Amino acid sequence: MVIFKNEFVEIIKEESHIPWLKIFTAQRYKELTDCPDDLRQKLYLCMETVEKIMIEYYNPTKINIAMFGNYVPHVHIHVMARFEEDGFFPESMWGKKQKELNLSLPDESSFFEKLVKKLSEIF
Amino acid sequence: MVIFKNEFVEIIKEESHIPWLKIFTAQRYKELTDCPDDLRQKLYLCMETVEKIMIEYYNPTKINIAMFGNYVPHVHIHVMARFEEDGFFPESMWGKKQKELNLSLPDESSFFEKLVKKLSEIF
Repeated sequence: MVIFKNEFVEIIKEESHIPWLKIFTAQRYKELTDCPDDLRQKLYLCMETVEKIMIEYYNPTKINIAMFGNYVPHVHIHVMARFEEDGFFPESMWGKKQKELNLSLPDESSFFEKLVKKLSEIF
Repeated sequence: MVIFKNEFVEIIKEESHIPWLKIFTAQRYKELTDCPDDLRQKLYLCMETVEKIMIEYYNPTKINIAMFGNYVPHVHIHVMARFEEDGFFPESMWGKKQKELNLSLPDESSFFEKLVKKLSEIF
């Protein structure tokens, strides 16, 4: 599901039991330092904005951020809100499942609204 | 092993069969957006410099970057040079081991020298 899109970036929801967004560059680059400086700054600003709104809205135990791209070498940033009660904490979301899910979160639609509002102010 | 240290950041080698560095802030912050803007810019610059020198020196298949801190909530950035021949590729280094190691890499001491030289020019 596309949450936000403009000429520079596209933000997509990852299907998960935790709040998890992926920020892609609109144009494809393999590595972060392959991006033009201006685009990379925009990516960082998106990443920081997603982190801030996630913290405000979900009050997570910790934010996790990752840029891999081993399967699809197209620069993208994963931003995840992690909770002690989530199935993988304290391991990464790519780690070993630790326990059954015991997580109750507020409705995501208001989170997306707040995020899109903030991003629309920035861009 | 500490590779580089100044008043803002500390870069530490992670023991691994791949080139893997961790960039810590000297002062402790929980989340990336808790860092003062100026420090966060320095962190990004370090991350980009490590990425660039890793690419130049090791010619990896892909750079992987991660910021978790679930065990120790102190902002730090993992930068890893990944290779098709490494034990976990294309999974993340926190994923399931895929195969036995079949990786031959150049000596790391020259890599550290190049990196420290570049960082000393920047800071």
